Amino acid sequence: MVITNGIAPISAPSSIGTPTISTLPPIADPLPYVSLKTGLCYDVRMRYHAKIVTNAYDYTDPHPEDPRRVYRIYKAMAEAGLVDMKGASGAEHIGGKLMQHIPAREATKEEVTLVHEMKHWDFIERTASMTQDELVEETDNGDSVYFNNESWFCAKLSCGGVIDTCKAVVRGDVKNAIAVVRPPGHHAEPYKPAGFCMFNNVAVASRVILKEFPEQVKKILILDWDIHHGNGTQRAFYNDPNVLYISLHRYDNGKFYPGGTFGNYDKVGEGPGEGRNVNIPWPCGGMGDGDYIYAFQKTVMPIAEEFGPDLVILSSGFDAAPGDELGECFVSPAAYGHMTHMLKSLAHGKLAVVLEGGYNLDSIATSALGVTKVLIGDAPIPLTNVYARPEAVQTVDKVSRTQARFWKCMKIGHMIHDLPEAPAVERLQDIIRRYQASQLFAHFNMTKLPIFRDRISRSFEDQVLCTPGFQSAKTVVVIVHDPPDVWTEPDPVTGQISLHETFVMDAEIKYIQWAHQKGYGVVDINAPAIFTDQEDEGYNVQAALQDLCLYVWDNYLDLSDARNFVFVGVGEACGGHVYLLGHREVRERVRAAIAFAGAKTVFPIVPIMDEFITDWYYKNSLVLTSSNHPMWEQSNGGKNPRKKYGNVQKTEYETMNELLIGKYSDVIAFAEEDIEESSSEEEDAGPDRKRLKNEGSSDEGAWVDGVIPTSAAIM
Amino acid sequence: MVITNGIAPISAPSSIGTPTISTLPPIADPLPYVSLKTGLCYDVRMRYHAKIVTNAYDYTDPHPEDPRRVYRIYKAMAEAGLVDMKGASGAEHIGGKLMQHIPAREATKEEVTLVHEMKHWDFIERTASMTQDELVEETDNGDSVYFNNESWFCAKLSCGGVIDTCKAVVRGDVKNAIAVVRPPGHHAEPYKPAGFCMFNNVAVASRVILKEFPEQVKKILILDWDIHHGNGTQRAFYNDPNVLYISLHRYDNGKFYPGGTFGNYDKVGEGPGEGRNVNIPWPCGGMGDGDYIYAFQKTVMPIAEEFGPDLVILSSGFDAAPGDELGECFVSPAAYGHMTHMLKSLAHGKLAVVLEGGYNLDSIATSALGVTKVLIGDAPIPLTNVYARPEAVQTVDKVSRTQARFWKCMKIGHMIHDLPEAPAVERLQDIIRRYQASQLFAHFNMTKLPIFRDRISRSFEDQVLCTPGFQSAKTVVVIVHDPPDVWTEPDPVTGQISLHETFVMDAEIKYIQWAHQKGYGVVDINAPAIFTDQEDEGYNVQAALQDLCLYVWDNYLDLSDARNFVFVGVGEACGGHVYLLGHREVRERVRAAIAFAGAKTVFPIVPIMDEFITDWYYKNSLVLTSSNHPMWEQSNGGKNPRKKYGNVQKTEYETMNELLIGKYSDVIAFAEEDIEESSSEEEDAGPDRKRLKNEGSSDEGAWVDGVIPTSAAIM
Repeated sequence: MVITNGIAPISAPSSIGTPTISTLPPIADPLPYVSLKTGLCYDVRMRYHAKIVTNAYDYTDPHPEDPRRVYRIYKAMAEAGLVDMKGASGAEHIGGKLMQHIPAREATKEEVTLVHEMKHWDFIERTASMTQDELVEETDNGDSVYFNNESWFCAKLSCGGVIDTCKAVVRGDVKNAIAVVRPPGHHAEPYKPAGFCMFNNVAVASRVILKEFPEQVKKILILDWDIHHGNGTQRAFYNDPNVLYISLHRYDNGKFYPGGTFGNYDKVGEGPGEGRNVNIPWPCGGMGDGDYIYAFQKTVMPIAEEFGPDLVILSSGFDAAPGDELGECFVSPAAYGHMTHMLKSLAHGKLAVVLEGGYNLDSIATSALGVTKVLIGDAPIPLTNVYARPEAVQTVDKVSRTQARFWKCMKIGHMIHDLPEAPAVERLQDIIRRYQASQLFAHFNMTKLPIFRDRISRSFEDQVLCTPGFQSAKTVVVIVHDPPDVWTEPDPVTGQISLHETFVMDAEIKYIQWAHQKGYGVVDINAPAIFTDQEDEGYNVQAALQDLCLYVWDNYLDLSDARNFVFVGVGEACGGHVYLLGHREVRERVRAAIAFAGAKTVFPIVPIMDEFITDWYYKNSLVLTSSNHPMWEQSNGGKNPRKKYGNVQKTEYETMNELLIGKYSDVIAFAEEDIEESSSEEEDAGPDRKRLKNEGSSDEGAWVDGVIPTSAAIM
Repeated sequence: MVITNGIAPISAPSSIGTPTISTLPPIADPLPYVSLKTGLCYDVRMRYHAKIVTNAYDYTDPHPEDPRRVYRIYKAMAEAGLVDMKGASGAEHIGGKLMQHIPAREATKEEVTLVHEMKHWDFIERTASMTQDELVEETDNGDSVYFNNESWFCAKLSCGGVIDTCKAVVRGDVKNAIAVVRPPGHHAEPYKPAGFCMFNNVAVASRVILKEFPEQVKKILILDWDIHHGNGTQRAFYNDPNVLYISLHRYDNGKFYPGGTFGNYDKVGEGPGEGRNVNIPWPCGGMGDGDYIYAFQKTVMPIAEEFGPDLVILSSGFDAAPGDELGECFVSPAAYGHMTHMLKSLAHGKLAVVLEGGYNLDSIATSALGVTKVLIGDAPIPLTNVYARPEAVQTVDKVSRTQARFWKCMKIGHMIHDLPEAPAVERLQDIIRRYQASQLFAHFNMTKLPIFRDRISRSFEDQVLCTPGFQSAKTVVVIVHDPPDVWTEPDPVTGQISLHETFVMDAEIKYIQWAHQKGYGVVDINAPAIFTDQEDEGYNVQAALQDLCLYVWDNYLDLSDARNFVFVGVGEACGGHVYLLGHREVRERVRAAIAFAGAKTVFPIVPIMDEFITDWYYKNSLVLTSSNHPMWEQSNGGKNPRKKYGNVQKTEYETMNELLIGKYSDVIAFAEEDIEESSSEEEDAGPDRKRLKNEGSSDEGAWVDGVIPTSAAIM
């Protein structure tokens, strides 16, 4: 045997099992798991279920749940040498050196009705004897499911194959197994077929195992990584504490098939099954290896280990693989292998993989191969993309917080109690704005600027502050800003933050200090992220801020004596001053428009007045973005933004406070240069704009109409 | 072959490799990894290195790095059937059906000096020809290392064995391997032997591999789970970007061997190696499965995957196993298996396990068996303890934050910028106290109570507030409390908190409301967690609070007209009022001492005045603890606390705010009952404490000395 393979015994696989001449008593194999093969359930007869062709379109664009799906997976396994190629065309000769055939057989009525209602069984049975017209009608009436006269037989075969696959794993006939079956099952509800599924293969098999192996299998984990939520499986065990259903799927705010909110993260099971349902609902397509691995490491594996299953059944759709037109995701065969490897660490390795969806024939073949190689014992292929996207991190965080009520491992770092009733609760943004107001009063004597306007008065009550007498200052700095950054390290165990280790960073105060030292007037407008006031809830903050900026301009700034305005925007609040600049004639008095955009929106100026405002804005603005602003990503072409966005500059800073502090000198210089320039320009501007600069108080100088400037002022 | 084993072909391990009659062309084995054996390096000659016996004590209590260590591991493998028992006594016949022998050979000078200085090599060489007295002297002078004339040979054999083990893995002669060698290596510094180690086997092997396999192996991960920090290995690669060293070890604030700060979490490598050193330093013993698995899932595996090694070398001490007297930890064979399983997912499964420390002969044998079974391909044993202790969570959190500067995967949820300069930064505790003061003034007209005392005046400036005229109230409620809870959900991507999604929960205000409605006076003492004021930094808060409580009593409360005091403590601040109760004669006027201890310290009363204070405190106090207070843990015996801790009750609440709100009615009833009781008692108390209760204003009644109470008052 060794010789025919031509491989030296020392490293030859076939040397496993070579008889050794020994005087010691023979011992049973010490590691039966290693010595067992991986099971494979495959049966060509499952290809009989097919969509009845009713028009020419069906030929050119076949239904995605295509009979070739199972064949293509077997073929890929055979080409990779995992099974014999002969098996591809029949029920005989399936398997080989590394894999052991598990024959499929028809599931019985007793088995199927452990999950499904009798009328459901009866309906599927009837399809076997329906006329072609009846079948087409039922197909048209159904919920994304088609029938022919073989559907009944194939559905039973698929379900029976999955049952026997799970049984082989539980009994230890194989070390683990994969059932390459169709039609799939996870959308089939207890009372109806749906989503290409007739019987819920995995749910039926789980019920059979729990019934027939009550001692060996008390708890089953069903992990469903099909890109669609397994609504049927979730329903079947929604109140069952012994079956933990974990699903990773696209949710798209309930718009992705099967739709509705049943697949959302807050659906956690009910009654005795509460906390035994874990949905990880992706908000969009494009999820890839890093996202899935992150979800596994952060949530799936810790919960699975805490649950401690006796059997793991994997509802393995491959429609999250690249190339699947329904899934639009990018999970590589390497990542499928890694996830399989992780699942193998559970339940003494008792893992049954069951095919669900996946509709790109090439993708499902390579993905299934990635899974199967790891089942057999190969090391997974190293991952090349290990980064989780923000969307994934946010989703997994929501899931962790939700599940923290049920799983101790998920409680780490999360506070899970509900907010107590008012009046004991106050939003920090309101506390901090009141603190800011007291600070600005204490240091700069700043006070509230009255806002008399129905629509915005209440929400902006504390939000606009000004220095005394700013109306008569020559130069006024108008600061429109987001609330300050807060830096903290929450307790990693409880998630609670310590007040003494939490820092409020209000670097804007440096700019107010600068203005104060220069004798400029200051108007400070705070833009809260949301409205606390009940009446204003839902009122768009950006729109309100725009209203407010116009109001402040029309009622205060435009009427003031100031000849120079410097606008400073910080964060999303920049939208307020950019809107104002586009909607009022400000060009003669606004000397500089500085926007600390950071990583937030860069707002374009909208030329309501005239088109030259764009050129003016480009020349007189300084828009500072952080190094990680999305606009600089290579995928955006790396081009400079258009002029209407202003003079946009990329800085080396990441956070808003680093930006405010790091660019302080540059910004001050930019602002002062324009103020000085404008002063000398003004002197030559002719008699209609003559004002007198007070001697001896250049910083707080006031101008008086109609008086010729003195020579001191000209200097 | 099949027949001699007596196992049916269908599930027999020996059927792998059975020749099949086929007309298809023979193909090479499709999964060589699966078909390869696990390598085992073992050589009985490594037992020659032994401590020279110099006194009788050496016989009864042998040195922990005992020659039997390697033999006991081989024996356990043989007993479990992984290798032939014959191999235990010689260099022949090692290995068997599942494992392949990798012979040990002496490392060369060229190899060893890739890591070690020539003088180090020369010194070890000299030990081979030293006299016994010289050897004993060198042993006594060394850093926890002993020598005999065979040490030189054994050190070379151990090192050469590890080199060839790694080479066998890299070349693919074996799928992975374990080197059961001694002396160990990871404490050996480039310039000296230390900690039972002569040559740094793993470091030398890494250097050899990088040199001899430059194409196949560009990056090596060394994972060191020996309970001691591998100072020598860290040093050897501290500025090398191609070798990532990750160590989990006891640190005990630098007091655990090898001591000092080199093993702390902030040692991250230097120069080009910055960010290629990850220390996970446990603060204490007692770490177990849940802690190690948590560290692996949360930090080790994400970083390892991001690094993408071409080879993983495991510095595998087993001194974190239960029973090891040096390690005092509880890592089970199951957990060693799970960690091995995780590491197998890296680098195409190319994993070389190398024995380091571990000194309980039984423990290292079962632990090594747990690792080896998983290397061969067995599924790891399910974990029974999956919970991470707070100490582990905190340590891993520190490591993650530190490594966030170097690894994108660790950046998730962490803010990594430094705090900007003052004055832009303010601690939230100060902001919130000022806000509280403004609220208490607005609602209850409360104002600052002057504290004239050098030592505590500045830090407590804003901290004591009182209702106007509390000195003349009949009943005064004294509240001594920690800062309020803050509830937030930091952004899971950036770690930043949103001010509008952060809630300050100040449920204490309910108790002030109650007192206000009743017409009681209120004194509110805030105890910050640390002092903001520079001068007071480091001044113990608890001591300061005790001082302050005595000060407030002596200067205000004791001099007031109040006949009833209700003390309410919240959190750690309870220590303040409990101290006061023990240090002043308060029993005639304090009617109730309520302590919301939550999960914080429960303070005992210290009987300075007389011993009956303990009985008094037990009778008049209500100490409310949360359901998760450590005192209720079973390990504490579940006994009721002693009387000096007061009337301690376990509640169903977890957080302080739940406790404050949930027990509101009970606490109010308890306080009022005592106030009422005391009132009627007082009526009979004799003429020296007679006071008049104002009719018609029972809530705000004031008593006047020397006047007989009216009948209305008696009712």
